[in-house]
Amino acid sequence: MKPRTFRRKQSKVGLAPGTLVHVGEKKAEKVVIRAWIYNSEKLIEKELKTVEECQVLKDHPGMNLWINVDGLDQVEVIEKLGSYFGIHPLTLEDVLNTGQRPKMEDYDSYIYTVLKMMLLDEIKEEIIIDQVSIILGPNYILSFQEREGDVFDPVRERLKNPASRLRKNGVDLLAYSLIDAVVDNYFLILEHFGEEIENLEEKLIMNPVPETMRMIQKYKREMIVLRRSVWPLRELVNSLQRVESGLIKEATQIYLRDVYDHTIQVIDSIEAFRDILSSMVDVYLSSLSNRMNDIMKVLTVIATIFIPLTFIAGVYGMNFKYMPELEWRWGYPVVVIGMAIIGISMFLYFKKRRWV
Amino acid sequence: MKPRTFRRKQSKVGLAPGTLVHVGEKKAEKVVIRAWIYNSEKLIEKELKTVEECQVLKDHPGMNLWINVDGLDQVEVIEKLGSYFGIHPLTLEDVLNTGQRPKMEDYDSYIYTVLKMMLLDEIKEEIIIDQVSIILGPNYILSFQEREGDVFDPVRERLKNPASRLRKNGVDLLAYSLIDAVVDNYFLILEHFGEEIENLEEKLIMNPVPETMRMIQKYKREMIVLRRSVWPLRELVNSLQRVESGLIKEATQIYLRDVYDHTIQVIDSIEAFRDILSSMVDVYLSSLSNRMNDIMKVLTVIATIFIPLTFIAGVYGMNFKYMPELEWRWGYPVVVIGMAIIGISMFLYFKKRRWV
Amino acid sequence: MKPRTFRRKQSKVGLAPGTLVHVGEKKAEKVVIRAWIYNSEKLIEKELKTVEECQVLKDHPGMNLWINVDGLDQVEVIEKLGSYFGIHPLTLEDVLNTGQRPKMEDYDSYIYTVLKMMLLDEIKEEIIIDQVSIILGPNYILSFQEREGDVFDPVRERLKNPASRLRKNGVDLLAYSLIDAVVDNYFLILEHFGEEIENLEEKLIMNPVPETMRMIQKYKREMIVLRRSVWPLRELVNSLQRVESGLIKEATQIYLRDVYDHTIQVIDSIEAFRDILSSMVDVYLSSLSNRMNDIMKVLTVIATIFIPLTFIAGVYGMNFKYMPELEWRWGYPVVVIGMAIIGISMFLYFKKRRWV
Amino acid sequence: MKPRTFRRKQSKVGLAPGTLVHVGEKKAEKVVIRAWIYNSEKLIEKELKTVEECQVLKDHPGMNLWINVDGLDQVEVIEKLGSYFGIHPLTLEDVLNTGQRPKMEDYDSYIYTVLKMMLLDEIKEEIIIDQVSIILGPNYILSFQEREGDVFDPVRERLKNPASRLRKNGVDLLAYSLIDAVVDNYFLILEHFGEEIENLEEKLIMNPVPETMRMIQKYKREMIVLRRSVWPLRELVNSLQRVESGLIKEATQIYLRDVYDHTIQVIDSIEAFRDILSSMVDVYLSSLSNRMNDIMKVLTVIATIFIPLTFIAGVYGMNFKYMPELEWRWGYPVVVIGMAIIGISMFLYFKKRRWV
Amino acid sequence: MKPRTFRRKQSKVGLAPGTLVHVGEKKAEKVVIRAWIYNSEKLIEKELKTVEECQVLKDHPGMNLWINVDGLDQVEVIEKLGSYFGIHPLTLEDVLNTGQRPKMEDYDSYIYTVLKMMLLDEIKEEIIIDQVSIILGPNYILSFQEREGDVFDPVRERLKNPASRLRKNGVDLLAYSLIDAVVDNYFLILEHFGEEIENLEEKLIMNPVPETMRMIQKYKREMIVLRRSVWPLRELVNSLQRVESGLIKEATQIYLRDVYDHTIQVIDSIEAFRDILSSMVDVYLSSLSNRMNDIMKVLTVIATIFIPLTFIAGVYGMNFKYMPELEWRWGYPVVVIGMAIIGISMFLYFKKRRWV
Repeated sequence: MKPRTFRRKQSKVGLAPGTLVHVGEKKAEKVVIRAWIYNSEKLIEKELKTVEECQVLKDHPGMNLWINVDGLDQVEVIEKLGSYFGIHPLTLEDVLNTGQRPKMEDYDSYIYTVLKMMLLDEIKEEIIIDQVSIILGPNYILSFQEREGDVFDPVRERLKNPASRLRKNGVDLLAYSLIDAVVDNYFLILEHFGEEIENLEEKLIMNPVPETMRMIQKYKREMIVLRRSVWPLRELVNSLQRVESGLIKEATQIYLRDVYDHTIQVIDSIEAFRDILSSMVDVYLSSLSNRMNDIMKVLTVIATIFIPLTFIAGVYGMNFKYMPELEWRWGYPVVVIGMAIIGISMFLYFKKRRWV
Repeated sequence: MKPRTFRRKQSKVGLAPGTLVHVGEKKAEKVVIRAWIYNSEKLIEKELKTVEECQVLKDHPGMNLWINVDGLDQVEVIEKLGSYFGIHPLTLEDVLNTGQRPKMEDYDSYIYTVLKMMLLDEIKEEIIIDQVSIILGPNYILSFQEREGDVFDPVRERLKNPASRLRKNGVDLLAYSLIDAVVDNYFLILEHFGEEIENLEEKLIMNPVPETMRMIQKYKREMIVLRRSVWPLRELVNSLQRVESGLIKEATQIYLRDVYDHTIQVIDSIEAFRDILSSMVDVYLSSLSNRMNDIMKVLTVIATIFIPLTFIAGVYGMNFKYMPELEWRWGYPVVVIGMAIIGISMFLYFKKRRWV
Repeated sequence: MKPRTFRRKQSKVGLAPGTLVHVGEKKAEKVVIRAWIYNSEKLIEKELKTVEECQVLKDHPGMNLWINVDGLDQVEVIEKLGSYFGIHPLTLEDVLNTGQRPKMEDYDSYIYTVLKMMLLDEIKEEIIIDQVSIILGPNYILSFQEREGDVFDPVRERLKNPASRLRKNGVDLLAYSLIDAVVDNYFLILEHFGEEIENLEEKLIMNPVPETMRMIQKYKREMIVLRRSVWPLRELVNSLQRVESGLIKEATQIYLRDVYDHTIQVIDSIEAFRDILSSMVDVYLSSLSNRMNDIMKVLTVIATIFIPLTFIAGVYGMNFKYMPELEWRWGYPVVVIGMAIIGISMFLYFKKRRWV
Repeated sequence: MKPRTFRRKQSKVGLAPGTLVHVGEKKAEKVVIRAWIYNSEKLIEKELKTVEECQVLKDHPGMNLWINVDGLDQVEVIEKLGSYFGIHPLTLEDVLNTGQRPKMEDYDSYIYTVLKMMLLDEIKEEIIIDQVSIILGPNYILSFQEREGDVFDPVRERLKNPASRLRKNGVDLLAYSLIDAVVDNYFLILEHFGEEIENLEEKLIMNPVPETMRMIQKYKREMIVLRRSVWPLRELVNSLQRVESGLIKEATQIYLRDVYDHTIQVIDSIEAFRDILSSMVDVYLSSLSNRMNDIMKVLTVIATIFIPLTFIAGVYGMNFKYMPELEWRWGYPVVVIGMAIIGISMFLYFKKRRWV
Repeated sequence: MKPRTFRRKQSKVGLAPGTLVHVGEKKAEKVVIRAWIYNSEKLIEKELKTVEECQVLKDHPGMNLWINVDGLDQVEVIEKLGSYFGIHPLTLEDVLNTGQRPKMEDYDSYIYTVLKMMLLDEIKEEIIIDQVSIILGPNYILSFQEREGDVFDPVRERLKNPASRLRKNGVDLLAYSLIDAVVDNYFLILEHFGEEIENLEEKLIMNPVPETMRMIQKYKREMIVLRRSVWPLRELVNSLQRVESGLIKEATQIYLRDVYDHTIQVIDSIEAFRDILSSMVDVYLSSLSNRMNDIMKVLTVIATIFIPLTFIAGVYGMNFKYMPELEWRWGYPVVVIGMAIIGISMFLYFKKRRWV
């Protein structure tokens, strides 16, 4: 059991709801705030030293604003940003509490979405889950990540291209692009697991060892973790499609349908992986039984051939005074040949039963 | 099987519905009634000696009232309180009968909710389930617990703070806070089980003994118990969110959405634990098979090496008069070396098959 | 397989629908009809010798009537009663055919409910299922049981009390009381099984024998039987709550909500029992494997210690003429001590591997 | 795998939809067409030699018409009949293609239902599935069977009775009766399987052999087949109840409710059989393990008693020159008694562990 | 794990949505575009060398147009075609990306459907999945396949027949025919698997080897793959039936109902195959246990008969000086006869227990 998956909010139990405390591991050294102000003609990119600077950014009326915050440790930064944009305390609490389930909440003046970003710890072969919060307002987007990441890089690249659809449309398309980037990333994770499970399957057939069983269980566990993150995503995207607040334009809905499809595909693959891992347990158990049968066959063949022979040898090893066979000239060769015949016929019998 | 989970109402079978009898273990020595009268300016806290005193408390018009009753043994106390606030006999029956499922019932003039509070009996490693009833009226809350507990303490602390949201809002927010406190408490229980299951898993890999299987079954059982308490909670909170009686203000709905999320998270974790415990049974069974294989390998290696050798020794222990080998000068060393060769080559064969 | 659960209507296959034939075992010696005529002031209790008498009973206008029929063998009695109250032939067919699933049918002028009453055959440890039909008309109730039973006794007691809610209300509350009595009875059955399963579990841990497995299967079977009777009950009560015919007053709906809760509790417990019984099968199978391991360990320890030693003894039992060790003065003690060392060190090795 | 259950339409792949080809085994020698023209006063029964005759039958205005076709081989017969009554080509295709799932289709001018009739091949212990199509028009019914059968006989009997409800009502009640006859027939099949499974269970307890496992699997398979035919029936009857075309009168709806109940009962029983068969697999596997344990116990007891004793005998069979015990007067009896003591005490030990 | 099933879009991760890139294996050498222009009187069939030619085809007003593209490698071809018919970039992206789930999307001016065509790689015994996209516009259909195939051949044949329903109706019926051709093809695949599973089952009973288990797992896997393609198909056809855009005429709806039925049948068969394969695992595991029991019986019989006899021989092989039996005249025959009696009675005992 990875504690990360099942612990939550523990340090908050007993606090008033809406109290801002960062719950979760500290993953980033410092908080980095970057802003992009853009419309179809212009793009200003800027790193903000203080939260107050975001006020200055508002000097560009009619332009779209994207503020991305990497790192959640400085609660006061989040708080200021929140109060500046009029974000509800419960939203800010959720941004800071990294134990959220993916969800979408419509606060009329903005839409709040929590997503789970998956990264792969290639050494431990474990999924690392980071929380991404996206607040979509009328002409701004606030996004919060637990640490600096590169999943949003392609979105930033496209944003720099003045001919891109992103620049020509509102922030709702940007929100879609961010969510799409997160979901796209799941495919990489799934691909990785697909390959690992394929390898495991080969091992299972070649040489099943307890380690194989442990790996099966490990991947099963990772699938449980993945599933917990992806199932609610489906509902999230579904709700986003049906949101009526005007924050999401109709043209963007078609794109959301696309993300929805991808989410279903991810869920599909996870379920298929689970099915496959489950039947691998069956294969493993049956292969254990097969091995046992193989071992038993060897023991049985050897024992059933030699035990009767040893008995015969034992008989003629008895020290009775009057044992006529012992005196016979050809007693020894007859007994040895008799033993050979018994042994060989038993062997042939086992051969017929395919035990040898 | 814990009798507590499956026995119910037995002492009531046959009584008229609405007859007030306390059903359940007696958990508290005496009944303690505490009242808090508050608005944004003032807070009066008082322990009531008799139920009649609650009438006096009503002298503070426009203020909010919270009456908390610890202990359910004195039926007449509950009855008087009920009649004073106009509570339906069926509600009172449910308050007294501690075998309820969590549920919400809208009686127009008040909303009745039953919750299950989880405590951990650390010695028996068992969950103790106490029933908490909350009756939310227009400007009062009645809460009933089976014994004095400290789960509501943080709520009381916040109530004492005049700047807190609780003081500035109506009793519906207080009701939310009480439910939230109960749900928050579940995370502690889950965390505890998370750790225990983690420990168990390590044991399972290191040294699986029947005791391990028993513990897996035990935790499975506890999960069944937990699940029975938490599943209906989801519906409960969901119904609360959609209540139309005006007893719950719209601003509070947002907070209830938060509790709903937490409930889903708890259910999620329980389901994940169940999945994990189920696959632990597979691991346990496969490890039993593995052990059997290991034992059989040892037996087979030893037996198949020595049984043929013993047979050879037996042959030369026969007492035939005419056995030329026995007379040979080098007969003995030749046979011993022959045996060694047979033994070693069988050993090498087993080594190749990885049985040794 | 209990035939009772899966046979149905066989003697009717091919008959026209609506043909009145009693299908099921004959459980009562004779048909007993009892009537209660009551309002808040008066209660007349009477045993009817002939069905025609029920007409006389109608001389009390404005009063409520409850006719209870024990025993279903005299088809003509049921038929007359049916025609007198204007009951649809299909209803009467269902009353007589004891293989019904619990269901509710609204025939506008009356509501027909079929319930299953559970009794425990303590000797065979089996559930006996009796069918109870309740027909609720505007001011009358007809109830039919397969035999005289005492489940309705508490309802009758309450009816005798002029101050009881039953007397002050219409027949719909009486119908509720009868249904509630049946459901309450389920808890007794569940309690019995709870205890039996608890006992079984102890046996499972102490000394699992094939008999234990048979008992587990038996209880699983009984749970399947119970479930078939209780699942449809849920829908039944749910439909009753939503009936719009005016036959059930709004005040009674609240009481039905209570029965609904109890039904859910019963279903919950059955599902929990099923879960527990299923994991008991796992425990049983794992305990069989454990026993096998224990047996194999003993065999392996004994065989692997003594087989090599026997081989050594065999070597020095060979009759070669030139075996120098045999002539040595200390040959015998050296070999015996050597054997002891080999034996003890193998024993210690097994001790280390915890096989002893 | 019975090919019958999973092959379908193969000979049609590639043909235009609506092309009339009989798909399925040829089960009847020739096509038999029978007609019943009836109202409450008169009943004309007639076997039709040619399809054209059905036109003549139409000379009885205001009367109800039932045409039953046994055998589907003469496609042109079906085609003519279809064109005469204005049946859609897709319907006729479905009538001829015996691989349909049970379904109901409302073509406004008529309602088309496909049912599966179950017959028992008592020799092979297999279910034979025949397809029955019923076309319900305003005043006619066309029914198609794969071969002459006797399931509809009771319906015909009732039709001959002028006082029967069938004669007094329209063809919709006749359609109900036909469906009811098919469903009633399922109970016979279920009863048969109930008894077979009961027998199997006894065998399972007395003497489980691989044949028992094969029978369990066989019945499981038959249950899958049954289920595939009965599940869609539920929806079918449900749709029939809610049809709005006026072809089914309200009075008949009540009867359909009855068929619906029976269908649910059949499904219930199938699910219960599946549950029971599944747990029989558990019992079988556990009984295999038990047998293995019994075998191992015998081996272990014998081997662990005699292997050490044989070792002792071996020691004193060694040919060392200086073995003082061999010279002792009481050496032999002491050793033999020692062996007896060892043997008996091991036996007692095994007795204590209940291995003997 | 077949990579094909779980990899998707990988080469696209990070690209802007709507960017046209062919994702998937290159399956066709070159792109072949064929057009059919038809109405009830005329049919023009033409292979297009360049996409521009499709413009010329538009010179036939009022006629229906079907353009079929085999091969997806030349992105610019797809792009031009798309822009000519006004297809949304996301649709074109989906056409090119062969990792889609079957789905239907209504873009008002056209309906886009993705299907999966199944082919059987008879050598590898694997299902090959090709993607088929169908775009249904007001009077045109665009269909895209990954390679040239013959599944649509029967549709083309029918199209050539001027009397066929296809020629007399709009393109919506053609769209239905294409979908129907794809679904019909599934039955061939299912039939193939039905036979293979039947063969496997026979092997399972005759001689279960690990290879059998591997085949079971293989088919289970193929069923997972099939299921992933067919489940969404059900929803697809269902949505098509309920589409309101006027692109699908009411007369065609009836035909779609037929495809829907077939889809359900395919799903049904897949589920039945899954059930059967699952129970084959049980049979396999039980047959392994049976074999083990057989092996153990042989070992036990041989060992328990000869081990005690060998012990007796060992006793009389001891070299004690004073062993009176050894001196007796009839000692040897008495002991040999005694051994024979012991051996035979043990054999009879085993015979009685049916171990021999």
